[in-house]
This record gives sequence, structure tokens and C-alpha cells, in this order.
Amino acid sequence: MSGVSTLAGGQGFKKTYYKRQLPCPPAIAFASAEGRQVFAEALAEGHMNGFFRLMEQFSTQDEPAYCGLASLAMVLNALAIDPRRTWKGAWRWFHEHMLDCCRPLAEVKERGITLPQAACLARCNGAKVALHRYGSVSLGQFRQQVMEVCSSGEEHLVVSYSRKPFLQTGDGHFSPIGGYHAARDLVLILDVARFKYPPHWVSIPTLFEAMRHPD
Amino acid sequence: MSGVSTLAGGQGFKKTYYKRQLPCPPAIAFASAEGRQVFAEALAEGHMNGFFRLMEQFSTQDEPAYCGLASLAMVLNALAIDPRRTWKGAWRWFHEHMLDCCRPLAEVKERGITLPQAACLARCNGAKVALHRYGSVSLGQFRQQVMEVCSSGEEHLVVSYSRKPFLQTGDGHFSPIGGYHAARDLVLILDVARFKYPPHWVSIPTLFEAMRHPD
Repeated sequence: MSGVSTLAGGQGFKKTYYKRQLPCPPAIAFASAEGRQVFAEALAEGHMNGFFRLMEQFSTQDEPAYCGLASLAMVLNALAIDPRRTWKGAWRWFHEHMLDCCRPLAEVKERGITLPQAACLARCNGAKVALHRYGSVSLGQFRQQVMEVCSSGEEHLVVSYSRKPFLQTGDGHFSPIGGYHAARDLVLILDVARFKYPPHWVSIPTLFEAMRHPD
Repeated sequence: MSGVSTLAGGQGFKKTYYKRQLPCPPAIAFASAEGRQVFAEALAEGHMNGFFRLMEQFSTQDEPAYCGLASLAMVLNALAIDPRRTWKGAWRWFHEHMLDCCRPLAEVKERGITLPQAACLARCNGAKVALHRYGSVSLGQFRQQVMEVCSSGEEHLVVSYSRKPFLQTGDGHFSPIGGYHAARDLVLILDVARFKYPPHWVSIPTLFEAMRHPD
């Protein structure tokens, strides 16, 4: 199956969007020629071990304020944690709508979650969590954590950041980190707003700065 | 975040499942050590170009009979076809529930779709489609098609097959093909029933045999 380019037209489309243009730079789109090259190099470096399990569970946030829940559901599924309750039919599997402890889902739908609430949600669903607030680690320590997590494949990292330093529309956002490229100091953001931006590589210092964003 | 192994217990879990064990062989699990090695080699061979866009849109079938719809939604999104209608809020993006031409969704939910219906659905949503029925191409021609599609990155392949030759539970199923490893003659199946089986590599001859399955 191959694509036919279609152009949206007519009044009805004026206030709707087919994605947003990913600002490159500062980002490098995952599926671009450069992005594929970065990926191959990061794989060869041994910093893409976490990618495989995360990619298996890559999903789309179902509501504007569910970026935190979608990121957590991805990671809980990637960690192969049994939710001990059914999703649909006979199947036990995490969906963001099932992450209903710590804060009522109706409130999350209105206002999203904070970093401590994300940690609470992950814990009450069976994950071991280490929460690092901005200011508690240096840039160098953050880089070391990213590298260790991405090469282990046994743990995963979710970041809370502002989209502004990446020149992207919107502001506070959660997404999991999918890999690290040491030679170019880049991290792969598996953006759960997939209807808006594709996954993309950004520099560690820019992500670190973006994480200064208050909850 | 790292995982805590949990054991499901109690009467309530007797008839529910946390995934199924992927039979290996004949499959090789995508995220296993061997699967990661196969992936790295296939990438080096130049047969993973289609993988990047597909992986960006990898999703889970929402209903037992929606494997065809979920596979199509993945591919339509990977091809960056504008659905010309909104999914949620202001965003235009394909979700399987939006694939409602050719056959009423209520019927699809009951009985799934056939290969010609899948082709019809893809066409009426803006894709260029080449439909190949089992028997119309030889094993060698199929292998050649898989190789060309996986290395182009501009088109994608969805297969309709029986799970039985792979010793998997269930029978007729649709999923997109995510890559090809020439030296070992393996294809990557991005199984949309992600709550059941992870993505896996299988041999081209076994997949070809599995495609003999009647609609």
C-alpha cells in the first residue's frame, strides 16, 4: 500500500490540524534520513536496549491532558507488569484509562498530572519508581542516568518538560525517553501526542533546560 | 522506573490472560537478544526503512475482530495520509473506529474483514493499493515484494494469515510487515494484538504458507 497525497480543503478544515511541522532544528525527526542514521549509530553504541520494549507499546494519548497517563501505560506495559485487572475481554493490559488511583481520572482529564502524581500512579500499579525533581541532579548526572537507562533495557525513563525550548506548540508535556546517542549527546523522545509530532531526537542540554518547567 | 514482578492470583483471574507465551521457534521475539541482533543486521542490510514510519504509529487493535482495521489505520498514518476528518478535538488522524466505509463497522466488529474489504477500505481512505491473493504470486515473488517494500520506506505491506503455522493461539489475523532480514530470510510482523503477542520475526516460507489461510 502506498500513499496518495491529499489536500484538506473547505471551510470545515480551517480550525483543524493534520499534525504540526516539527521544528528541525532543534529536533531531528526519527524517520528522517538523519534520524535513521542517528538511530543506527545509537544502536551500535549500545544505547538503544530500552527502545525495543518501549516501541512495542508505543501509543497515543487519548485526551489532551493524558500525556502523563499514556507515558505511564507505555512504560508499565514495556516493563511487563501484570495490571491484575482486565483491559478488554479476557486480556489484562494497561490502558491509560485504567490508571485511576492517586487522582480521580475526571480531574486528570481537566488538568493532567504533576510529576509526584505520575510517580504515585506508577507505584500503585506495581513499578519501582525513582523520582528526580529538576534541581536535584546536575546536567552531567542526568546524562549519566539517561545513558544507563537506555542501555539497560530493564528500566525506563519518563520526562516532564516544556515544549517551548524545542519551539513546539503547547507547553508542559510528558513522554518516555526511547534512546541515547552519546557521540552527539542526543535523546530520543517517543512523543505520545503522535497525531501532532513524530518521535524526535533532541540534545540533552536542551531537554535538561526544558525540564526546568514547573509542574 | 523499573518493574516489579507481580503474580496474578485468586478466582477472578482464572479465565483472564496476561499475554500468551510466544512460541519460539518458529518465531523470534523482537525485543529478545536474538531479535535485537536480527534487527541490527536487517538495518545494516538496508531492509528496515519502512520500519521507522510504521513504528511511529504502532497501535493495538481495540476489538477482537479489528486486526484488519488496526493494521490499516497504522499504515494510513505511516503513509501520512490526511483523513480529511477529525479524530478528536482539532486533530485529523486515523483511528480504526474511523474506517467505516466498504462495510458497516457493526458487522466488522462481529466478523472482521476479508482481504478485498481491507483493500476497499484502504482505497476509500486515500491509499494506492495493490492486492495480491494467495496463489497469484510465487514464494520467490512474495520474498521480492517484501524486500522491496521494506527497503523503500515509501510503501507498506499488510498480510492476512493464519496464526496456526506459527503455533500461536487463534487463527485468521492481519498485521503489517515491519522489516526483512535477507541473510536469514526473516520478516518482522508488527502484531497489532499487542496485549497477546509482541512483535516477532518469522521465516518467509512459513509466513507464505500461513497466507494460504482462506478469508
